[in-house]
Amino acid sequence: MPTRTVAPPSTGGLSAPLTSEGRGLMNLLTGELPGIRADAGPRDRQGRFPDEVFRAFRENGVMGATVPRALGGLGVSRMRDVAVALRALAEADASTALALHVQLSRGLTLAYEWQHGAPQVRERAERLLRLMATGEAAVCGAVKDAPSHVTELAPDGAGGWHLSGRKTLVTMAPIGTHFVVHAQQRLPGRPTALAAPIVERGAPGVSVINEWNGLGMRASGTLDVVFDRCPVPDDAVRSRSSVEVRDDSVLAGQTVSSVTMLGIYVGIAVCARDITMTWCRARSQQPPAAVRTLVTEIDARLYALRATADAALAEVDSLADELDLDPAERGRRMMTPFQYAKLTVNELSLRIVNDCLTAVGGAAYAESHPLARLYRDVRAGWFMQPYTYVDGVDYLSSQILGNDRDNDYVSLRANRP
Amino acid sequence: MPTRTVAPPSTGGLSAPLTSEGRGLMNLLTGELPGIRADAGPRDRQGRFPDEVFRAFRENGVMGATVPRALGGLGVSRMRDVAVALRALAEADASTALALHVQLSRGLTLAYEWQHGAPQVRERAERLLRLMATGEAAVCGAVKDAPSHVTELAPDGAGGWHLSGRKTLVTMAPIGTHFVVHAQQRLPGRPTALAAPIVERGAPGVSVINEWNGLGMRASGTLDVVFDRCPVPDDAVRSRSSVEVRDDSVLAGQTVSSVTMLGIYVGIAVCARDITMTWCRARSQQPPAAVRTLVTEIDARLYALRATADAALAEVDSLADELDLDPAERGRRMMTPFQYAKLTVNELSLRIVNDCLTAVGGAAYAESHPLARLYRDVRAGWFMQPYTYVDGVDYLSSQILGNDRDNDYVSLRANRP
Amino acid sequence: MPTRTVAPPSTGGLSAPLTSEGRGLMNLLTGELPGIRADAGPRDRQGRFPDEVFRAFRENGVMGATVPRALGGLGVSRMRDVAVALRALAEADASTALALHVQLSRGLTLAYEWQHGAPQVRERAERLLRLMATGEAAVCGAVKDAPSHVTELAPDGAGGWHLSGRKTLVTMAPIGTHFVVHAQQRLPGRPTALAAPIVERGAPGVSVINEWNGLGMRASGTLDVVFDRCPVPDDAVRSRSSVEVRDDSVLAGQTVSSVTMLGIYVGIAVCARDITMTWCRARSQQPPAAVRTLVTEIDARLYALRATADAALAEVDSLADELDLDPAERGRRMMTPFQYAKLTVNELSLRIVNDCLTAVGGAAYAESHPLARLYRDVRAGWFMQPYTYVDGVDYLSSQILGNDRDNDYVSLRANRP
Amino acid sequence: MPTRTVAPPSTGGLSAPLTSEGRGLMNLLTGELPGIRADAGPRDRQGRFPDEVFRAFRENGVMGATVPRALGGLGVSRMRDVAVALRALAEADASTALALHVQLSRGLTLAYEWQHGAPQVRERAERLLRLMATGEAAVCGAVKDAPSHVTELAPDGAGGWHLSGRKTLVTMAPIGTHFVVHAQQRLPGRPTALAAPIVERGAPGVSVINEWNGLGMRASGTLDVVFDRCPVPDDAVRSRSSVEVRDDSVLAGQTVSSVTMLGIYVGIAVCARDITMTWCRARSQQPPAAVRTLVTEIDARLYALRATADAALAEVDSLADELDLDPAERGRRMMTPFQYAKLTVNELSLRIVNDCLTAVGGAAYAESHPLARLYRDVRAGWFMQPYTYVDGVDYLSSQILGNDRDNDYVSLRANRP
Repeated sequence: MPTRTVAPPSTGGLSAPLTSEGRGLMNLLTGELPGIRADAGPRDRQGRFPDEVFRAFRENGVMGATVPRALGGLGVSRMRDVAVALRALAEADASTALALHVQLSRGLTLAYEWQHGAPQVRERAERLLRLMATGEAAVCGAVKDAPSHVTELAPDGAGGWHLSGRKTLVTMAPIGTHFVVHAQQRLPGRPTALAAPIVERGAPGVSVINEWNGLGMRASGTLDVVFDRCPVPDDAVRSRSSVEVRDDSVLAGQTVSSVTMLGIYVGIAVCARDITMTWCRARSQQPPAAVRTLVTEIDARLYALRATADAALAEVDSLADELDLDPAERGRRMMTPFQYAKLTVNELSLRIVNDCLTAVGGAAYAESHPLARLYRDVRAGWFMQPYTYVDGVDYLSSQILGNDRDNDYVSLRANRP
Repeated sequence: MPTRTVAPPSTGGLSAPLTSEGRGLMNLLTGELPGIRADAGPRDRQGRFPDEVFRAFRENGVMGATVPRALGGLGVSRMRDVAVALRALAEADASTALALHVQLSRGLTLAYEWQHGAPQVRERAERLLRLMATGEAAVCGAVKDAPSHVTELAPDGAGGWHLSGRKTLVTMAPIGTHFVVHAQQRLPGRPTALAAPIVERGAPGVSVINEWNGLGMRASGTLDVVFDRCPVPDDAVRSRSSVEVRDDSVLAGQTVSSVTMLGIYVGIAVCARDITMTWCRARSQQPPAAVRTLVTEIDARLYALRATADAALAEVDSLADELDLDPAERGRRMMTPFQYAKLTVNELSLRIVNDCLTAVGGAAYAESHPLARLYRDVRAGWFMQPYTYVDGVDYLSSQILGNDRDNDYVSLRANRP
Repeated sequence: MPTRTVAPPSTGGLSAPLTSEGRGLMNLLTGELPGIRADAGPRDRQGRFPDEVFRAFRENGVMGATVPRALGGLGVSRMRDVAVALRALAEADASTALALHVQLSRGLTLAYEWQHGAPQVRERAERLLRLMATGEAAVCGAVKDAPSHVTELAPDGAGGWHLSGRKTLVTMAPIGTHFVVHAQQRLPGRPTALAAPIVERGAPGVSVINEWNGLGMRASGTLDVVFDRCPVPDDAVRSRSSVEVRDDSVLAGQTVSSVTMLGIYVGIAVCARDITMTWCRARSQQPPAAVRTLVTEIDARLYALRATADAALAEVDSLADELDLDPAERGRRMMTPFQYAKLTVNELSLRIVNDCLTAVGGAAYAESHPLARLYRDVRAGWFMQPYTYVDGVDYLSSQILGNDRDNDYVSLRANRP
Repeated sequence: MPTRTVAPPSTGGLSAPLTSEGRGLMNLLTGELPGIRADAGPRDRQGRFPDEVFRAFRENGVMGATVPRALGGLGVSRMRDVAVALRALAEADASTALALHVQLSRGLTLAYEWQHGAPQVRERAERLLRLMATGEAAVCGAVKDAPSHVTELAPDGAGGWHLSGRKTLVTMAPIGTHFVVHAQQRLPGRPTALAAPIVERGAPGVSVINEWNGLGMRASGTLDVVFDRCPVPDDAVRSRSSVEVRDDSVLAGQTVSSVTMLGIYVGIAVCARDITMTWCRARSQQPPAAVRTLVTEIDARLYALRATADAALAEVDSLADELDLDPAERGRRMMTPFQYAKLTVNELSLRIVNDCLTAVGGAAYAESHPLARLYRDVRAGWFMQPYTYVDGVDYLSSQILGNDRDNDYVSLRANRP
């Protein structure tokens, strides 16, 4: 019988990268996966960031995967390919995938700025991308203010700025070299502006607080970062817009920043599923009725989960190229399928993990059982920006019913009393 | 501003045909849709088959859409394209789509026989396909025995056969010109064989019973057909196999026969959704909280529903071409994603229709409201072969857990005590 | 072994009446049930009101079941006992139960007026109750305006009123002798008032339109009634209140009018369950895995459904006696558990009926199968006032979160633009 | 206005004890609750057993709450009253409630033995109950074998026995003074018997392993206990039965041992709900649409959850008194409503906690947030014996469909290959 390529088993989607760059990234990851998987449990229990994994990622080029080839990176430009890679990584350890996501999605948004931005923006993006390609830069986003803090830029009196505030949920912070900080810029007599200065870790007044403990994703290095009158030169401040102006064009960048995370929750579901099926097949007994029903529903939902995430990523990738669309329209068109898919991914991945625990039974309730970790990790998806479930209903129902509103969660928050 | 192609709104899948043949079919259908939609309600209430619609379909070539071009048809060969067409048709009237499905899926399976069958099989397939292309033949499947009947072929003593029995759930029967009848062939001293003779409507002993009334799909012409010692020449009998032999290769044909129906239930959900959103937007008041939550969940589920059906159809289309796979393996590989998607399509389409009724409120409970029809129509999906939910759990859990069993629902039934 | 009373099988609630009056009603019903059940299918298909059943109910006293003994009735005063009776009746035919509910809940609200009303109100209530006890009066509620109609009382210039408008969803209309009509009373320079005149069927200008067809509950005699300058004496008008005044005390009467309907949906679920279990037990084969899972979930949900309905009815019965509570507070306290239970009853009864169809398979999809009728009947619960799902979320979330609003669905509607 | 008792707010069930003994227990608990609640978070994070709480319980009589008054206890005999107390305690800390449950349910089963057992059994039960009343005895159950261990009794050659094996999931182990150990008793030529010797903590060969870490219920002191040729006198062995004999009478005791745990999961749901509503009410903004829908569904499900648990507990209490029922029949009748309610309690409590996290958003994902603890704790309910979900489907579907099987999970396990 002649050798032939056997069709891969049925999955529904997010199985393999579409571009050669995506395959290149996947190849670099593949060798690391067994080691990452083996240490996922201990890292979770200790809340320990996978420093050694990211050291390898710096050395083998993974940290520059989404940096354009011209700037020294691997040149992965499709969000779907990034999501496929994060899916595979999350099957080994979701926390590691969440941390890597920070770097890879930053590469995508900076590459867009480098290609389409104003000269000053392009230059800044290029500088950072080149550092990401070599592994010298690990760029964190610092978006969410810690409770009862507002992070602000105040004039330093010499044409520059002082940044002060406290950010929470800054993922990959233990190895972060740069922070893109969402801040409010207040000048007398002008409406509050939103700005996003880039601050280096070593700058005066920057402290990473090694304290946060999450229900899950405990090895993702998600920490608070404090800024205490940290000096920021004027050209490091990208002013986004006034909080008073609605600008749906920002939805495009927000989508690019977050949509590849869908792959992480697919990976969690796949991991839970594989553990469960292995366990069920190892039983000597005839499978009980409820187990047969559960495994059927788990696999049917996993198929739907993967198909839905795949469809949204393909659609967003395609819209990313439609640069002659009206920017606000393009922003909404990218955000909407992402949000549809996010609702389904959150619901189905949680449901799958839950059904896996039910099928396996009491053994899965031990803290050291991987399903117990996945049960905690999977719940993070519901809280990822944009949007939480509550905000997602506001956004999507307004789109569907034709109600006008501000869709930018950053300015919405800034305006919230 | 220059004219440009605007990206279609976000749907998740099954939006547009992929091949030019698929677009040809869609174009032929499009003009008929308003008329079909307008009469869907009255036809449902009267349980009346859309004779006038099918007259048009015979004339414009739709009845030969899946007949190869070489035999005079439109040459649509992709299941996904058929499903897209049925989705659009079902948005206007699900019953009409269900009836047309019978003809279109028959075209697909006969085209396979014409391309890959033994000479006698090819010849018979060609004859029938040519008649389908001109609209002269409308070919029904007669698979399910009426309760307490077994349809059998008995030797007529002259080298031919007598067919006797009663079939139920024969869709498109009012205009059916040929019936492919699943029958048991019993010869002394031999294991029971399964055969599928093709019987013309005018043959002696054939009666179409105009009596069945379903909960929904009431205009689909789904009737009983009685065969009373109906003479069948030996060469009209395709013997499939002994009931004692497991043969998963038949799963391929069973998949092709049924998988395009997924489009029908997508179409029902889309129709319910559009009615509901139109209704909600027409309210003068601010949308209530529950309506905002409901429309969000309706649209998110519709996106997942479409993405899942699309993924399964694309996968099945791709496997249909892999003719050098082991036939049994190919059969299971085609059936499995179909069954995954069928579970999701059944669950989500019902859920969407239900949520639409809830959002619209009491008005939707009047028999004449289209949502009331959709509430009844959508439930048919759960009972379509192969498999019902109960049999689907048996099939899929065996595939997942590695348990061996007979997967052919036709022989399973024949063997059932 | 000595004879002993065997404990009844486990049900969760609403099994047996608590009072001797309730048992009396149950005894009168029990003999009628087989006949009612036998004819439920044909009546549904023909949309035919069970005249013969209500003739028996008039003769045996069931039509006066909730009329106080002192006025000639059976004296059933507990809502839970009425719900138990309606549950048993709905197991035979939900439409009949829905129609009887109209009369029995009217008896309860009139008995309250007779006991606690002002003299004129008491007198009018007594007159009607005495007629209900003998079976001479069948009193319908006419609450909901037909689309694009507003039912109004206009001064007739002679101290009386003319009633004009069109009401829809008037259940038991075919045999209704009196209609309690919710109407708006508009006098120049005064805020619109809500009034509820009682109109006799034979009055000039009253026409019952025999036209409405529902998705389900098709034998309940739910029709439109037209009032065309129908004369109403001033003392037949009970003015309720101005639409501008919030008055949560009306929630008590609205609860009494509707809460016993919970028994109907419990009865539908029980009927579906019993049909399904009988069918499953009759199969010769070992029950498939999915059937075992389904029957378990059906029975577990039925237990929860019955327990929840029982708890709410017991609570409402107990609050009905607490006449020294603040009336608005008492109104909200009665409505809230009713609404909690209504949400659960709607969700679980639909889920149970659906799972029953799934377990039974294709046979259940024939229009003549009782499960097909139950699938249509059960959906009515979601639309029963007060409240629909959408309005229920508004009411309950306001109660929970402490937001003030008008909770009277009648005045809310009157005020809606 | 005169003072009056205001009706309690609507809950659905398990609000207040029914007996004076139950109220006595509730009063003893009430004063402890604030302290228990305040320390629940730290105890959970440290996996620390609430020694100080149980010291108070020993001193104030709570540890003897279910010991009959005649033997020095509080005399609580109704399972529903125990569940009400555990519900209140679990609102403060579910782990503490789970540990106390061990002692209280043991009191109930021993009290039954004391009342109805053979003389030797009575005597042994009395001895233990008296020690429980004074707080000297804390009696743990050791039912489940650790993976790859079988706990066995072997003859010691001198008329007594040696117990060897390892048990897992022994709750309250840190302060346990006695262990009721389920063991297999194997004698040559005889079928394996099941026995339940009572072993004191100080006996030779007993070691409590302070190692287990659960996903949740981390302060419940749920540990492994090892028995290494631990000497057991013959009269400490209660032989239950041969593994070959089916005996559904044991279901009664298994029900009593576990059914009061339903109160714990009700308490978890109440706690999550209260935290969430407090949080939502404290927002200054108008509640978003999704929050309004969520809080409505949370409270409706909580009502159903409480009503269902209450109904099952009341039914089981009532059957406990029916001592002239056939014992096997009584066993099944007690187990069945417990299992119905367990399925609903598991599903709804998890759903409620999940919806609470969704309503509160990202703040709930911090390990120190009480909702994060409840998310882990609530999942324990699915694994509590008898039965897990999988075994529950086997048991209930067999009861419903009339299939015969061994319902004793202890002998089922012993027989499992």
